Amino acid sequence: MDTLINDIIDVVGKNGVLLGDDVRQRSVDWFTKASCQAKAIVRPQSTEQLSQIMKLCHAVNQPVVTHGGLTGVVHGAIATPDELVISLELMNQIEDIDAVGSTMQVQAGATLQRVQEAAEAIDMQFALDLGARGSCTIGGNIATNAGGIRVIRYGMMRQQVLGLEVVLSDGTVVSSMNTMLKNNAGYDLKQLFIGSEGTLGIVTRAVLRLHPQMPSEQTALVAVPSFQALTALLSLASKELANGLSAFEALWNNHYALMTAERTKHSPLLATDSPFYAIIETLGSDEEKDAEAFARVLEQALEAELITDAVLAQSSSQRQGIWEVREDIETLVHELDPMFSFDISLPIAHMDAYVTSLEEKLKAQWPETGQIVVFGHLGDGNLHIMISVRDAAAESRRQVEALVYGSLTQYRGSISAEHGVGLEKRDYLSLSRSFEEIALMQRLKHALDPKGLLNPGKILG
Amino acid sequence: MDTLINDIIDVVGKNGVLLGDDVRQRSVDWFTKASCQAKAIVRPQSTEQLSQIMKLCHAVNQPVVTHGGLTGVVHGAIATPDELVISLELMNQIEDIDAVGSTMQVQAGATLQRVQEAAEAIDMQFALDLGARGSCTIGGNIATNAGGIRVIRYGMMRQQVLGLEVVLSDGTVVSSMNTMLKNNAGYDLKQLFIGSEGTLGIVTRAVLRLHPQMPSEQTALVAVPSFQALTALLSLASKELANGLSAFEALWNNHYALMTAERTKHSPLLATDSPFYAIIETLGSDEEKDAEAFARVLEQALEAELITDAVLAQSSSQRQGIWEVREDIETLVHELDPMFSFDISLPIAHMDAYVTSLEEKLKAQWPETGQIVVFGHLGDGNLHIMISVRDAAAESRRQVEALVYGSLTQYRGSISAEHGVGLEKRDYLSLSRSFEEIALMQRLKHALDPKGLLNPGKILG
Repeated sequence: MDTLINDIIDVVGKNGVLLGDDVRQRSVDWFTKASCQAKAIVRPQSTEQLSQIMKLCHAVNQPVVTHGGLTGVVHGAIATPDELVISLELMNQIEDIDAVGSTMQVQAGATLQRVQEAAEAIDMQFALDLGARGSCTIGGNIATNAGGIRVIRYGMMRQQVLGLEVVLSDGTVVSSMNTMLKNNAGYDLKQLFIGSEGTLGIVTRAVLRLHPQMPSEQTALVAVPSFQALTALLSLASKELANGLSAFEALWNNHYALMTAERTKHSPLLATDSPFYAIIETLGSDEEKDAEAFARVLEQALEAELITDAVLAQSSSQRQGIWEVREDIETLVHELDPMFSFDISLPIAHMDAYVTSLEEKLKAQWPETGQIVVFGHLGDGNLHIMISVRDAAAESRRQVEALVYGSLTQYRGSISAEHGVGLEKRDYLSLSRSFEEIALMQRLKHALDPKGLLNPGKILG
Repeated sequence: MDTLINDIIDVVGKNGVLLGDDVRQRSVDWFTKASCQAKAIVRPQSTEQLSQIMKLCHAVNQPVVTHGGLTGVVHGAIATPDELVISLELMNQIEDIDAVGSTMQVQAGATLQRVQEAAEAIDMQFALDLGARGSCTIGGNIATNAGGIRVIRYGMMRQQVLGLEVVLSDGTVVSSMNTMLKNNAGYDLKQLFIGSEGTLGIVTRAVLRLHPQMPSEQTALVAVPSFQALTALLSLASKELANGLSAFEALWNNHYALMTAERTKHSPLLATDSPFYAIIETLGSDEEKDAEAFARVLEQALEAELITDAVLAQSSSQRQGIWEVREDIETLVHELDPMFSFDISLPIAHMDAYVTSLEEKLKAQWPETGQIVVFGHLGDGNLHIMISVRDAAAESRRQVEALVYGSLTQYRGSISAEHGVGLEKRDYLSLSRSFEEIALMQRLKHALDPKGLLNPGKILG
């Protein structure tokens, strides 16, 4: 065992360092379940411990990869045998909740679901929400600027963070635990770390913004006859439910039909022959009035033939049933195995042409095996595209990537809307970012982590 | 005339450079109307011209100060005789409006009001709003991360910016004109420049986010019997009007009574003996239902004795009348001349104690001349405090600053909620930011502007 590990054990104790099989047993990739190859997994119990660990690593140029809930999908947590993993799993406390100030102070390792539940316990809400809520951590949500299903109403994780504490590559602790909605006293340093995927600093604690709880929740699954109708429906809902609209998720037929096929566990709530489906949700404070307004919009949509059918959730279990179809990624992974996953954004006006053309190209190149599933946060201009050609080879992946990213640039789209870049999309960064942008990213990386110790190779090569 | 000016005239033409009296005639300070002392005012007509100008300046180490609408109040635009002013006034075009994508592309010199009007012309809204709307520019709003009266609903300027184009100190153009709501393809570079007060780069163009227009606007001025009632009223309004609440402005009696005194032009809409007043506003899509909900909240507040009286605007001119009292800063400046202006944030729970104690200390130190006026964005934890001791001397200013900032640190408040730091608050930055935070700011400044050419001395010493 090398000296560094011994020195780290002196800081965190034996229980704070995992070695050998305890490391290999862990997966670093949600899709492939690939085993963790790191030299060791180090588990600090405090910011002070982490600071000491990073000072030790900095002294001997030891690179580190930070782990949260490991629910990322862009290979952002992969570690080589030369790298140490820093896991925030033992720093998972909810330190403070302030109902008057509408803030919560948490350690980075707390899961999103615990944070949501802690907010609910004081009649507030934490507004970020996504399928991996039970496993993903606040630190990971911050490091990846997580999106999810309520971005249309509350913004991404960036909008939920008021303050941040970060350990830099040399062990310096930058505590910027602001609790106020507005603070223009100098540069807003937290912005630098949010969405930087662990390459500029290690997030240890955060002050989160809470919102009033919305007791009235209206949810519907609707069948939509065309893409034009889908965008018109989004406009109608945005306008008529403007203040309350909290989710507008679109499902292409290839998604809904697959997820409700007989062999999967979801029974279809609507006939499976509609070209598109949408999940629409509003949050409000007045159940009766909100239900009325919601029903009125659905009626208007029916009359205008923007929808052909609708199921309105009458209970929270019915609501659950609607969302399960959207959130069950495991069934998708199983059905499409081996699956290539994409998370793009592009202007809504171009989405239909883009997807149609992609589908045609896929079928032309893989007439037998090519399969595509499309769904996503339409209101945010963000689509998730899952593709299988029944072949996991690197060359097949590259060919599929060429198809997906090929026409994206002409629409000035992004190769990553909410999943980040990691290792997986790194080689395509220049499709969404200019030479000058990437050079500036590298300049920031060099300024904050001159030795390149933090999550090496992720985002930037 | 020096060589640099001649070289710059070669780039922008004679009309692009102001010299001598044309420079002195301009003011750099909204309160004092102090004359501009810069060597010259350079007015590029395009990003390309500005890039060339900065290359010339960089080659000879010429420092520059960027000017927008000059409505800032922290001496952020002051330029010495050795400095050049870069004014974006000729780059004021609205380049594109996309109703489907809900975006607008503008040059930095466009005024906020023109942007608001352009959005309204296509039935959308641009959500930032503040009193200086007719003069302040989008570039200035971005450089200072402007706040204003709708932060409680829509966030600060940071939340309204999707994409940004910036010229760096060496003339490099970083074009990051993202049009999408979600884009996690690498570091979100625009965040670095928003709120950096022209010290890291010069903002030349931006992609702004638009929101659906809210045809229904409910506005009331209410009299509030105590600070406790004021915060209870905010909680009630936040909860009951949650999705629609767009402004919650508090006026202390010392503000309302002064602004509606006989010698000023505003006639009081409510009796002037209430300890507090609030302006409450909601934005929505259904006039009838919104008016009902708004009236219901006011009734509830009356019954619970959270308010003692209310005026509900029945027309847009009545709405205007309510807001004029809040937005008429000129009368304040006139009444309190010479006035020291503060813009602090602190947890709402501590505000009353803080202001009461500040008032007592002021009266103890300046029993004859001390006068304080307090108002602000209560929902954001942000107060504007105007103080006069009828004496503009630097020593008096320092004494007043010591009073205002003295007890702020114990509440972990901020010396600047929305106005920024500039020169005026620079010496107090360490009250709101730690050594490590300031060191990191300096590291960023050095990484982006190693020669220190951009707005020298502002924010950081």
